[in-house]
Amino acid sequence: MSDIAYVNGAYLPLAEARVSILDRGFLFADGVYEVAAVVGGRLIDNDAHLSRLENSLRELRIDNAPPIQTIANVEAELVARNGLSEGLVYLQITRGASNDRDFGFPSGTTPTIVAFAKKKNIVASPAAETGVKVLTVPDLRWARRNIKTVALLAQVLAKQAALDAGCQEAWMVDRDGLVTEGSSSTAFIVTKADALVTRPNSPAILPGCTRKAVQSLAAREGLTIEERGFSVAEAYEAKEAFLTSASNLVLPVVSIDERPIGSGAPGERARLLRSLYIEWATKPVATR
Amino acid sequence: MSDIAYVNGAYLPLAEARVSILDRGFLFADGVYEVAAVVGGRLIDNDAHLSRLENSLRELRIDNAPPIQTIANVEAELVARNGLSEGLVYLQITRGASNDRDFGFPSGTTPTIVAFAKKKNIVASPAAETGVKVLTVPDLRWARRNIKTVALLAQVLAKQAALDAGCQEAWMVDRDGLVTEGSSSTAFIVTKADALVTRPNSPAILPGCTRKAVQSLAAREGLTIEERGFSVAEAYEAKEAFLTSASNLVLPVVSIDERPIGSGAPGERARLLRSLYIEWATKPVATR
Repeated sequence: MSDIAYVNGAYLPLAEARVSILDRGFLFADGVYEVAAVVGGRLIDNDAHLSRLENSLRELRIDNAPPIQTIANVEAELVARNGLSEGLVYLQITRGASNDRDFGFPSGTTPTIVAFAKKKNIVASPAAETGVKVLTVPDLRWARRNIKTVALLAQVLAKQAALDAGCQEAWMVDRDGLVTEGSSSTAFIVTKADALVTRPNSPAILPGCTRKAVQSLAAREGLTIEERGFSVAEAYEAKEAFLTSASNLVLPVVSIDERPIGSGAPGERARLLRSLYIEWATKPVATR
Repeated sequence: MSDIAYVNGAYLPLAEARVSILDRGFLFADGVYEVAAVVGGRLIDNDAHLSRLENSLRELRIDNAPPIQTIANVEAELVARNGLSEGLVYLQITRGASNDRDFGFPSGTTPTIVAFAKKKNIVASPAAETGVKVLTVPDLRWARRNIKTVALLAQVLAKQAALDAGCQEAWMVDRDGLVTEGSSSTAFIVTKADALVTRPNSPAILPGCTRKAVQSLAAREGLTIEERGFSVAEAYEAKEAFLTSASNLVLPVVSIDERPIGSGAPGERARLLRSLYIEWATKPVATR
């Protein structure tokens, strides 16, 4: 992590950044978050993240958070104060700390806002060269996965299952037998007929910001996109597979459950879309 | 809340009780908790709570928490330092704070332990006289509800829906049309044939400590207990209904979705079981 964090109006060393044990983010997972990548000292595709943040706040009825421009300014200030050239900014807003611990919404609390920055190689990611291995696991999550909340325990357990199996990401499989998404990314496959397949937005998945941008870029290239669920069996037979996320951009998936996908090497669609995304995201907005 | 809290080895004023913003309880809901009632200056039925806590830790593979006796000592010390005669003790253990925010389990972190006490009328509860009103809502939770984690957002939303409707508790209804449990309590009905009905333990519900004790006491009284799911329609037609929880003991339910249950007044089984539970729980363990 970088050194300077933000907590409720104050910029302070990360080691001193603390919240009350009564914060509802800590007691109830009653909060939402966003992660945005920084490339060339600039937050990329951040309007999409801030728009999703507003939606998450609305869904949870956290209605007295500061205006979204204030949030954007905090993120930009964190990038500046940390001298961050490439990495990510993490931002979390909770319903705040109440003097009482009751499940229902407390009255009169002020939302807690925390943020921190982290240096990370975003563009020159080693995983983009090697690809990542995926393990499929049952999707154990709740029914409102379209809200980006900090109630992430199912995702934590899914990711750990993947790591235990020597993989880098878990793809979660719903009761219907279809893949929903990764524990912290969107799942795509490319069929033998060269169609990009990913699950449509619904309460079953988080509406990925990078997913959306990549879909637009793919359409601009004339690629076929099918928004539909796909089974694990279909994924095994795919020509290639990849994932998208804010901090990983586009990463090729080279195996699923130890079965090589396509040639077992990063696929050409993933490479193309990664490079198009980087080009798009690092361009001034007016010239996109 | 009372004044003295506990955080990682230190007893300190609640207003100064804080955790790092990197704590996995705050970032990922990666933690577990217990609430135990205090009556007559003594934690009641706490062995059951500590045993469930150990199980929750094991399920999440938080394997380097202190011995359970150390935890019990912290709770007892909190009761003493706060001069708590009646109320509850809240205890939470998370996977700890890592210098990095990765979904998978970090290595080398020490679990975070926090606890606080709260004064509350446990025995002479006004709700025990009036009964509570229940609203049924869809059960939106994840698939591992038998682990008492702080990923409580679905329960928060359920409770708030109940409060919005002028009720005090929400009973959650699973996809199978059967009631699972309350947002922070176990659900019971009494049939016209005088059988106590409650859902059997499974990953669909939390194994209630008070539920278990009340079931034993009911059996000792010769009451019939049916461990099975029940529908909302069956609950509407019940002779009476009640809930159990550590901080509410046994509370009569007088209406469900605005339909009066039985006479619409607290039922006699609920009154009996509440009084038996209080007698049992406040007795020295050796004389139970």
